[in-house]
Amino acid sequence: MLKKTFLLGFFSLSYAVSMAQSNNLPIYLDDSKPVEQRVKDALSRMTVEEKVAMLHAQSKFSSPGVPRLGIPEFWTTDGPHGVRSEVIWDEWDQAGWTNDSIIAYPALTALSATWNKKMSYKYGKALGEEARYRKKDILLGPGVNIYRTPLNGRNFEYMGEDPFLASKMVVPYIHGVQSNGVATSVKHFALNNQETFRHTSNVIVDNRTLYEIYLPPFKAAVTEGDSWTIMGAYDLYKGQYASQNQYLLNDILKGEWKYKGVVVSDWGAVNNTEQAIHNGLDMEFGSWTNGLSAGTKNAYDNYYLAQPYLNLIKSGKVGTKELDDKVTRILNLAYKTTMNKNKPFGNIASEEHIATAKQVGEEGIVLLKNQNNVLPIDINKAKKIAVIGENAIKIMTVGGGSSSLKAKYEVLPLDGIKSRFGKQSEIKFARGYVGDPGGEYNGVKSGQDLKETRSADELLKEAVELAKNSDYVIFVGGLNKSEYQDNEGIDRKSYGLPYNQDNVITALAKANKNFAVVLVSGNAVAMPWIKDVPTVLQNWYLGSEAGNSLASILAGDANPSGKLPFTFPVKLEDNSAHKLGEYPGNKEELALGKGKDQKNPINITYNEGIFVGYRWHDTQNIKPLFSFGHGLSYTTFEFGKAKADKTTIGQDDKITFTFTVKNTGKKAGAEVAQLYINDIKSSVPRPAKELKGFEKIFLNPGEEKSVSITIDKEALSFFDADKHAWVAEPGDFEALIGNSSDNIKTKVKFTLK
Amino acid sequence: MLKKTFLLGFFSLSYAVSMAQSNNLPIYLDDSKPVEQRVKDALSRMTVEEKVAMLHAQSKFSSPGVPRLGIPEFWTTDGPHGVRSEVIWDEWDQAGWTNDSIIAYPALTALSATWNKKMSYKYGKALGEEARYRKKDILLGPGVNIYRTPLNGRNFEYMGEDPFLASKMVVPYIHGVQSNGVATSVKHFALNNQETFRHTSNVIVDNRTLYEIYLPPFKAAVTEGDSWTIMGAYDLYKGQYASQNQYLLNDILKGEWKYKGVVVSDWGAVNNTEQAIHNGLDMEFGSWTNGLSAGTKNAYDNYYLAQPYLNLIKSGKVGTKELDDKVTRILNLAYKTTMNKNKPFGNIASEEHIATAKQVGEEGIVLLKNQNNVLPIDINKAKKIAVIGENAIKIMTVGGGSSSLKAKYEVLPLDGIKSRFGKQSEIKFARGYVGDPGGEYNGVKSGQDLKETRSADELLKEAVELAKNSDYVIFVGGLNKSEYQDNEGIDRKSYGLPYNQDNVITALAKANKNFAVVLVSGNAVAMPWIKDVPTVLQNWYLGSEAGNSLASILAGDANPSGKLPFTFPVKLEDNSAHKLGEYPGNKEELALGKGKDQKNPINITYNEGIFVGYRWHDTQNIKPLFSFGHGLSYTTFEFGKAKADKTTIGQDDKITFTFTVKNTGKKAGAEVAQLYINDIKSSVPRPAKELKGFEKIFLNPGEEKSVSITIDKEALSFFDADKHAWVAEPGDFEALIGNSSDNIKTKVKFTLK
Repeated sequence: MLKKTFLLGFFSLSYAVSMAQSNNLPIYLDDSKPVEQRVKDALSRMTVEEKVAMLHAQSKFSSPGVPRLGIPEFWTTDGPHGVRSEVIWDEWDQAGWTNDSIIAYPALTALSATWNKKMSYKYGKALGEEARYRKKDILLGPGVNIYRTPLNGRNFEYMGEDPFLASKMVVPYIHGVQSNGVATSVKHFALNNQETFRHTSNVIVDNRTLYEIYLPPFKAAVTEGDSWTIMGAYDLYKGQYASQNQYLLNDILKGEWKYKGVVVSDWGAVNNTEQAIHNGLDMEFGSWTNGLSAGTKNAYDNYYLAQPYLNLIKSGKVGTKELDDKVTRILNLAYKTTMNKNKPFGNIASEEHIATAKQVGEEGIVLLKNQNNVLPIDINKAKKIAVIGENAIKIMTVGGGSSSLKAKYEVLPLDGIKSRFGKQSEIKFARGYVGDPGGEYNGVKSGQDLKETRSADELLKEAVELAKNSDYVIFVGGLNKSEYQDNEGIDRKSYGLPYNQDNVITALAKANKNFAVVLVSGNAVAMPWIKDVPTVLQNWYLGSEAGNSLASILAGDANPSGKLPFTFPVKLEDNSAHKLGEYPGNKEELALGKGKDQKNPINITYNEGIFVGYRWHDTQNIKPLFSFGHGLSYTTFEFGKAKADKTTIGQDDKITFTFTVKNTGKKAGAEVAQLYINDIKSSVPRPAKELKGFEKIFLNPGEEKSVSITIDKEALSFFDADKHAWVAEPGDFEALIGNSSDNIKTKVKFTLK
Repeated sequence: MLKKTFLLGFFSLSYAVSMAQSNNLPIYLDDSKPVEQRVKDALSRMTVEEKVAMLHAQSKFSSPGVPRLGIPEFWTTDGPHGVRSEVIWDEWDQAGWTNDSIIAYPALTALSATWNKKMSYKYGKALGEEARYRKKDILLGPGVNIYRTPLNGRNFEYMGEDPFLASKMVVPYIHGVQSNGVATSVKHFALNNQETFRHTSNVIVDNRTLYEIYLPPFKAAVTEGDSWTIMGAYDLYKGQYASQNQYLLNDILKGEWKYKGVVVSDWGAVNNTEQAIHNGLDMEFGSWTNGLSAGTKNAYDNYYLAQPYLNLIKSGKVGTKELDDKVTRILNLAYKTTMNKNKPFGNIASEEHIATAKQVGEEGIVLLKNQNNVLPIDINKAKKIAVIGENAIKIMTVGGGSSSLKAKYEVLPLDGIKSRFGKQSEIKFARGYVGDPGGEYNGVKSGQDLKETRSADELLKEAVELAKNSDYVIFVGGLNKSEYQDNEGIDRKSYGLPYNQDNVITALAKANKNFAVVLVSGNAVAMPWIKDVPTVLQNWYLGSEAGNSLASILAGDANPSGKLPFTFPVKLEDNSAHKLGEYPGNKEELALGKGKDQKNPINITYNEGIFVGYRWHDTQNIKPLFSFGHGLSYTTFEFGKAKADKTTIGQDDKITFTFTVKNTGKKAGAEVAQLYINDIKSSVPRPAKELKGFEKIFLNPGEEKSVSITIDKEALSFFDADKHAWVAEPGDFEALIGNSSDNIKTKVKFTLK
């Protein structure tokens, strides 16, 4: 006891010493001083070499601080769905650490499909906690590139086709991550809407479309979300690479939006020192090193914002105004992250994280169709459950590109089903078909061996036999994280399901009427068999808890409440980018071989303009396979008639729509009330409707709640390219309220003066 | 400006959110709660598996926290003179990072030779700052094993032969490091006084010697220094390995000294689960993995305090009392280090660090002899300076074992001399002799290629020619960091200088009278040529600033003030361990091949008892080559007659001795006043004198200061093994005050009642 007192005594003493020293702390280290003053002080102590060093990477994922001054390094990490495993210093290979396994959270498409802003905050907070525990300062996500085509291999990492939904869902994610003192890096700014030609394409898009469709989630992310960093994209816009782009970075982001954060390049997206200096980039990562192997000493000196920048300064060709601006931004970031003493310690795989992963999955799964209420599985009638399809046993957290993870565990759909139903039911599995091997990304291997020697016919026969002899048949198929599927770097080749799954599904539908198709994917797919299949679940990539989330929905433990964040067209040609726009690039240029390298970029013109997704379908009356906002439940809801608090509003007014939603079924559940605006008459072409508000409402059986959604003129505006301003034209508008873009339950007219 | 306000606004908001959350924080994360309560709370939430996981490594240098609860990992690092470079997860090989170059500080022998406690604090603070910047939580040092024999290959890492000097010097080092929230790990506890047979020897030492000579620096380190961890040694004591030793760890450290910190094993020092559980070890590092390669998944489960411990608990053979005690200690450590939010960020290679490294070097260099005032070099007479000897060009920060470093830079002696004298003098170099290649440790390479094709005769001839044609000759030789020299793992083979340097020195001494020998070493060496050489500097290993510190002393910019922390005997047989004791082990057992492996440990009996170093020389009147405490200056000092404030003291009194020290020369300098106690009559054999106080005094020319040193009965006591207590016997004592153990300037008698 004597000793303990002594220990405490000394501890207090040394604390007192440290307190006493704090009076002598230089301003930049003094927490009691305003950040602006601290930044200035730090800047004044730095050499030009130290400043330039902060602008570029020192390894694959880190950038230097100022060791001499004690300003810490920055450690970045992929990715949006979980914290990537450690790689060796200078290469993409695995570092072989054993402390870097984490919870894989559902892909951002799934999060977006929850239409639940609180879920997005919980997701971001949990993910940020794992990043913090792993000592990461910048998380390279979330991605909010708009879903323009179902072929984009990276759609699964994004938040769908609607700028409003993506804006509302991305903001709480950012707040959640950043509450840990970990910066988000909203990506990829901007117009990186496909993977094919991502390094070699120049996007041509009119200003109205840019501002109405492609920029809003980024604007929300930086102005409402206050994302401390933003990541420039690979593609070109107006002939300049996005990560060193005067128009996107200087004029719009830092000009119009007054962004004070840090612009980081995508990995290897920089290729011109002067543009990188002058066009708004702050930090350069992942560049090649001019023929030096990355392992060469000082290879990083060859970065565009390294020695070449220093040379320009030293020769007097470039001043230090831009340098000080960049370093000021980076130092500001440091005070929020690395030098923020109030940040928590983070944690990994806490009970809360696991629950969040599972819940996002449950709320994200979309019940697309449920004829005859095949689902939920009636446990009393389910003596034998057949699980069929490779995706029931395929690891999906590994692969797909930079979002690939080293998960602590991944509950596969088959395992989730076994664990939920295995006690009462006999669960049998048949593979049905064989897909790509996949399961590896830069040395992270899934460890799965899914070799199969039997023929497709044999597999199909086995599956059909099993289906016939079962009470329920759950087919788990879809896409996967292999090349040409949901995978970074190159797009899908076609809209249909791969591996002849359509055949398998059709055969199974004939074999058993208690049949549900579960599609694991991050993209829409064609469903030629849809009329024959009673029940379809859009399951997304759900990470560590994938199988548990699915089983919970199948059993009805959780009631489906997900809504599609993008349209499923019947066929590819029904999608506007494929109908009107260019994809994967201008046809004549394609024929000439353009887009093969950076010297010959290919143009992609977005001729479809603002008519993306449901804006196209609804305006052109092209019936989709499943519409934006669609999603069924195991219960039923009734919308009451909506009323507005006024009939006429001025330009500075708000208007509130109030209506009731009632659970008229026998199961607790959640409905997403969606408010769309229709500009009845406009001087410019406008979509039939545009999402401008939504609310997820949880209701017990019989419960009714009153819902109010308020909008202002922002919701009525279009972007007038000539005036370069948002304009709300006086006239009549209609608020359309429903539970899907194609299922409007109640309408209210009003007039803008 | 609008945006800026918004940013600040949001920042405050999220801060407010985080504050609001802090009300809901679990106790273990709540900074406002007492640590004891937080530890209990954390403990109560942990599973037995999580507790056991914290007791052992997960990689070469790290141990797990509790990811689920957000309790961070611990990252340890060698070493005492600078923060070791990064290795890959599971092996000793370099990780190839480029951010891990640091300042190499002088070896601990040099620090100890400063006899300057403030210098020790500055050293620790700077080193700790570098560890912190490198995100290390536990620094594996300092070493305070007593210098028993000049053959011990690791003496350079320790603080000399005197328990009082080592005690006083180690405490501020610890405070300095730990002021950064980085724990020290005082090592190697205990009795690891040689490298040969370090894994396979059992030390036999009487209790009085153990308590008087070998334990005091450790006791000071934990009771006065409050070192948050301590490292167990490799050797056996009473037949038990030191890292799992009932006597050392439980009875003495945690029992008598009431130590509440964490005992970590030396790397690979554990070999028995039950002993590790019960005998006071808290954390196990560096163990082999029972035939599994370290890269095997879960190889660390095979650690003695891993699965084997868990198995014993689960089978009920062992309870959880010890487990909870160990984890409690580790959690307490976490709150001081990883979970201490008040710790600074650290920094690397700041101007202050570089200045500290240089200053410790300058104050540590010992001017052993300076006949005819050869030094400082008279710049007006030094048209041509010859620098001769391999150590003038040999990198010394690489090699030597686990203290090997990846220094940002190392100023070699020749470069330091060139940079100081090169403008006025012509500096020429001749190698003189060729030593071992050295220069590598576990993949850190010095990068030097010191190949030499000429014969020894040719080299000697060249050197002598150069010496004859120069105004000054500076020979830089000594030992190096190669095997069998100053190197971990195995001891030196002999006491003499290697590589025939004696010949070279003798020849040079004849060639030029303006001759100085600079010995770079961490050990005493024989100097058969001492009578022929006018000037000798003991230079130690001085790290990054080595050449600058030396040049500063050679030029007289700094005035030598170092004092030997151990005796230089004339010949090995004059050392008591070699005269009376056993080395490297019992002779008969040696002949039987004992000590070759852990199954056949060899005994080493310390027959010399307490008569270590000057205690032996002074008591036996064996004149040393250079005595403990010896060190000259470029100026002269005069000691006034000492007076005591009383003539008789009681057992609870203090007595203060006061005397003046005056700089009687023409140069500012520092003298170390040393106070030794002589127990004039005692019931037990006592050394002729024992150091019990010292003070380094800085004086301008002509300046005089009054110095007071106070002692109490602790300084008069010996350890009575029968009573197991420190005893001060009433009777007459003498305080001997001088500037070396063999140069007493003034004496005061007094009586203890």
